[in-house]
Amino acid sequence: MNRRNFNQTIAPLLATANLLPQLTAANQKPAVNEDHVHQSIPKGPPQQIAMLAYPQMTALDLMGPQAFLAGLGNVQVHLVWKKKELVTTDNGLQIQASKSLQECPRDLEILFVPGGSKGTIALMNDLEVIDFLADRGSRAKYVTSVCTGSILLASAGLLRGCRATSHWAVREILPSFGAELGSGRVIEDQNRITAGGVTAGIDFGFLLAARLRDPNYAQMLQLAFEYDPHPPFQAGTPDTAPVPISKHMRERFAPMLTAYKDAAVQAQARLGIA
Amino acid sequence: MNRRNFNQTIAPLLATANLLPQLTAANQKPAVNEDHVHQSIPKGPPQQIAMLAYPQMTALDLMGPQAFLAGLGNVQVHLVWKKKELVTTDNGLQIQASKSLQECPRDLEILFVPGGSKGTIALMNDLEVIDFLADRGSRAKYVTSVCTGSILLASAGLLRGCRATSHWAVREILPSFGAELGSGRVIEDQNRITAGGVTAGIDFGFLLAARLRDPNYAQMLQLAFEYDPHPPFQAGTPDTAPVPISKHMRERFAPMLTAYKDAAVQAQARLGIA
Repeated sequence: MNRRNFNQTIAPLLATANLLPQLTAANQKPAVNEDHVHQSIPKGPPQQIAMLAYPQMTALDLMGPQAFLAGLGNVQVHLVWKKKELVTTDNGLQIQASKSLQECPRDLEILFVPGGSKGTIALMNDLEVIDFLADRGSRAKYVTSVCTGSILLASAGLLRGCRATSHWAVREILPSFGAELGSGRVIEDQNRITAGGVTAGIDFGFLLAARLRDPNYAQMLQLAFEYDPHPPFQAGTPDTAPVPISKHMRERFAPMLTAYKDAAVQAQARLGIA
Repeated sequence: MNRRNFNQTIAPLLATANLLPQLTAANQKPAVNEDHVHQSIPKGPPQQIAMLAYPQMTALDLMGPQAFLAGLGNVQVHLVWKKKELVTTDNGLQIQASKSLQECPRDLEILFVPGGSKGTIALMNDLEVIDFLADRGSRAKYVTSVCTGSILLASAGLLRGCRATSHWAVREILPSFGAELGSGRVIEDQNRITAGGVTAGIDFGFLLAARLRDPNYAQMLQLAFEYDPHPPFQAGTPDTAPVPISKHMRERFAPMLTAYKDAAVQAQARLGIA
């Protein structure tokens, strides 16, 4: 999370890696020399990345992207919450927040929000958090989310007029906030990058690595993290899962969708959205 | 991590889900009724799962599997370390250990070890940890790892005569511990289940869900976590990555491989392996 820690294991292997020039079919010859070291890592002060960490968030929503963002070299990744305290996730994991909202740098390269259910819904109308997101989001170079984190961005008025996505079970809410539903696992619209549910955060992390560095750097991360997925089943979307499983999971998620919708009505009244 | 926390968000939606009967092409009709609730979740005391959490581990090695294991219903997932303290991972994240090694239940459904580099190497000959792994591993129903966690299992003598795998950069070490290198992202040999680097932990998590529950339950988790991966590049293995990137990353990982080999010589002397 800071430069000292960054200088310790896999991240430094990447950060200090010679960065290859853009590869094409025509130039896939070894072209590594010291001139390319740090070619795509910006010089100067470290880029500031803030990841909201809150009670009852879904840990993996944050952990996938965190692995890739912390590996970008010359970055400081902050886990921000109201206090610098242990945050208990929705499955009981405890993670330490490293900065309070007040301490979070004002000008961010990336503002990131993970999802969850009960804890996320509670924040949709928590003005301390909403005001923080609206403020940092107004200046951040990239405003981003995984899973239902996009509903928090929307509740802070940050997705009006943007294409965006969310977890499949709740994404239908986004248009009520003035967003346009995007089609795809990771949706990029100008400086807004939103991803689908939970594991979509890994594909999202790679896209951000390519945007903040370059495609070669992103591929070095992919190889370091051995990202060659082989799902044992094809049940990753409601359209590809067996019909009874999709039907059943929609039923199980229905109460959560209703709770999101109720909180959305309140948020939209606050935002002045009819 | 405990039943109270488990009863809060996505996990409970899954845990309380009606469990569908085995699906085949012939019986993919909705067959959900209350008789199927908890069909594949064992009754009785919760199954005990211990995940080693140690300084300088790679957080995502643990976080991928943790998401799926914590979603199995009627489980207790413990993050175990020498003390119940904050553990700082190799990229600076801080996670709270929930049980000391001494407090860890003696009889486990799953013993799990994540990987890392410097911190992992330090544990290969740390007898407090090695003795713990050898003891719990001797009785656990499944002895498992992601990434270089398998090198710790091997250092505890737990992979002799087993097919296994590890992160691509160090897997060549396993045969020196009497293991046979398996071909694949997740290798299952009797009760040993080992996975490749970092993100392989997600495919590993699904396999364990299918083993501890059933394929329907695993597919419900897959849909809940929207696991429909779309890597933006094909650089996930040394064989599929562009040649300069593979070559370069092998060079960057070479010092780590050497450090692993040095520690392996010491571990093998202790284990009496020539």
